[in-house]
Amino acid sequence: MPGYEPDFCPRYHSSIELIGKRWTGVILRELLRGASRFSQLSNAIPDITDKLLAERLKELEAAGVVERRIYPETPVRIEYVLTEKGRDLEGVVREVSRWAEHWLPPVPANPEA
Amino acid sequence: MPGYEPDFCPRYHSSIELIGKRWTGVILRELLRGASRFSQLSNAIPDITDKLLAERLKELEAAGVVERRIYPETPVRIEYVLTEKGRDLEGVVREVSRWAEHWLPPVPANPEA
Repeated sequence: MPGYEPDFCPRYHSSIELIGKRWTGVILRELLRGASRFSQLSNAIPDITDKLLAERLKELEAAGVVERRIYPETPVRIEYVLTEKGRDLEGVVREVSRWAEHWLPPVPANPEA
Repeated sequence: MPGYEPDFCPRYHSSIELIGKRWTGVILRELLRGASRFSQLSNAIPDITDKLLAERLKELEAAGVVERRIYPETPVRIEYVLTEKGRDLEGVVREVSRWAEHWLPPVPANPEA
């Protein structure tokens, strides 16, 4: 392509690597759909370990995408809430979902059934 | 969130993990901007090794996102071209770029300058 000029964008690079990290995209999608508890996320995502889920939530918190709210009840209640910055990722999640549904074959609900 | 129902989507999951793999998002963006040669991609992306770039291009080819065209010239010419499926990822790349530019601070052109 004669007119091509390289244009590496560090902000784009760090964003897509944050969102694309193993399981992060799925966690974001469930948070956008209303999940807020660790157990809800853990139950919704097959094969993810609690250790990795906790790690990903910490990364999202550090990136300002998720806020961890602690309610001093008995037992203590902890909720994970998307910040405005996090909710603004809805467009990315929607575009990936659209692409996936358009280009990838449906997965049978229960392959063993 | 009382009304929350888990909804793990395997197609979404495999798509975001494909796109989000280390360097893949950046490679896609340069291909969408017109890069087509291995050297163009290698020069455009700081820190990527030729080995990893070749690996990522193979994965994208296997996923039907990129087509590898060989022109029997001397020396042989090889081009990497986005398929229709690949070009349809433009919406994802655009959304990530928009989010990144909105939420992440600009990176100084040359930190040492």
